[in-house]
Amino acid sequence: MRRSAAANAELALHLEVASTPKPGNVDRHRDLDGLRFEHFLAGGVGARPGLEAAESGAPVGEAFERAVAGMSEQTGGNTQFGCLLLLVPLVAAARGGRPPTREAAARVTDATTVDDAAGFYRAFEHVDVAVADPPDGWDALDVRHGSDAIPALRERDLTLADVMGNSDGDLNAAEWREGFPRAFRIADVIQRGEGPLPDRAARAFLDQLAREPDTLVATQHDRETAERVRERADELRGASEKAVEEWADDLVARDVNPGTTADLTCAGIFLALERGVTV
Amino acid sequence: MRRSAAANAELALHLEVASTPKPGNVDRHRDLDGLRFEHFLAGGVGARPGLEAAESGAPVGEAFERAVAGMSEQTGGNTQFGCLLLLVPLVAAARGGRPPTREAAARVTDATTVDDAAGFYRAFEHVDVAVADPPDGWDALDVRHGSDAIPALRERDLTLADVMGNSDGDLNAAEWREGFPRAFRIADVIQRGEGPLPDRAARAFLDQLAREPDTLVATQHDRETAERVRERADELRGASEKAVEEWADDLVARDVNPGTTADLTCAGIFLALERGVTV
Repeated sequence: MRRSAAANAELALHLEVASTPKPGNVDRHRDLDGLRFEHFLAGGVGARPGLEAAESGAPVGEAFERAVAGMSEQTGGNTQFGCLLLLVPLVAAARGGRPPTREAAARVTDATTVDDAAGFYRAFEHVDVAVADPPDGWDALDVRHGSDAIPALRERDLTLADVMGNSDGDLNAAEWREGFPRAFRIADVIQRGEGPLPDRAARAFLDQLAREPDTLVATQHDRETAERVRERADELRGASEKAVEEWADDLVARDVNPGTTADLTCAGIFLALERGVTV
Repeated sequence: MRRSAAANAELALHLEVASTPKPGNVDRHRDLDGLRFEHFLAGGVGARPGLEAAESGAPVGEAFERAVAGMSEQTGGNTQFGCLLLLVPLVAAARGGRPPTREAAARVTDATTVDDAAGFYRAFEHVDVAVADPPDGWDALDVRHGSDAIPALRERDLTLADVMGNSDGDLNAAEWREGFPRAFRIADVIQRGEGPLPDRAARAFLDQLAREPDTLVATQHDRETAERVRERADELRGASEKAVEEWADDLVARDVNPGTTADLTCAGIFLALERGVTV
């Protein structure tokens, strides 16, 4: 009995949060104030019906909203909104029992509609998500308006791919625009790695964090903080486990949470599972 | 969007393994040799379709076999066979959106058939389970025969409830025979508890361990060891966290794994979630 793509996506959510050390984030050994490990477990379990909808061919926006609604049935707040934004199109791209390819994923995002964009906006009504201010001329389309922004979406005839095309500086949106290069690279890193999958995923997380400033850190703090985190991650590649553990504690203490890098890692874990990497 | 009974059962599997300290078992902070935290995450995700079958009214034996088959899609071996043996009838008893009662659970077990017993035996073909030798006159019905025992089951016209009625000394079988008194008591303990659900579950685990010798410890070691573990758990009720943590490390080092107590705790977590205890 092979796990379905939706099951692998849910498992990726759990394996992501279980991977440790993932500096600054909730992991097997660390909680944040009010956001604990078990909130992620409940979020992943709750997201499953939405992920199954994506696998069954439901529209991407509808499947995403359903996944986020289910994820939100816990008291920790936003646990995996960004992960789901990547997982839903990748699960949709896995249909037919084959591991998703970048081409198949791009076909999914290219085919999104204005209705999918509306589903994405509705998803913001289920949970508070930390987002940056919208670009100039996009005030009416601020995602924080939730479904109130839908008339403006329809007026401008914007698909979900269009919306992602206008989210400058967001690595998850960049994945949508560019055909998920980071998720597929992380899957390669995990696939080539050795040892238990969560250990490989933690190393892949640090590697991604060393490459690009994390979006959530830039949003919650500023660009310089995000760049300093990137530099420190780069210094720590290949450092002792102790040094990485210490930095992980330090980031948690300073409320510096590279959550977007965790989203990308989760998507990479999913792709690795789909390629047959075992747990 | 309320979580379904099947989703709550899967979440109970994850919360059980995340609860810590659970002396002697895999928990958020401890792995065993070759049996790691992530194997339980994959086991829980894989069990979901079988749990959903139980919720939809599939025969208990069929749902159980399906849950075990899905659980087994990971490389750690048996992770949650005993949990599922309790969860499947309890999920079946939750049908209709109400939390299961002891009466509803007893109706489910009372209604089991010879086909359900056959499904139970088939489940042993998916994974190696540590079990005691069968009672006198039951050699042909040793569960380790798997489906080869089914003709003997049919010849003697034994339902799954009959099979459980002949498993002396197994606390999970006793739950089946007695209408799940331990699972419901543990749910009460969790419901009355304070703090995060995994902390309450860890305390409920220790409390149950102090009450009755663990079946798996008796099977893998002997009755005296199981009784000594019970006595030590009783001494440690209300002891410092440090003392319990040290004992947890000690039991893991000595390969003393009270897995049946973990099964009962998992069933209690499920019932607590069904009653509306939040994560």
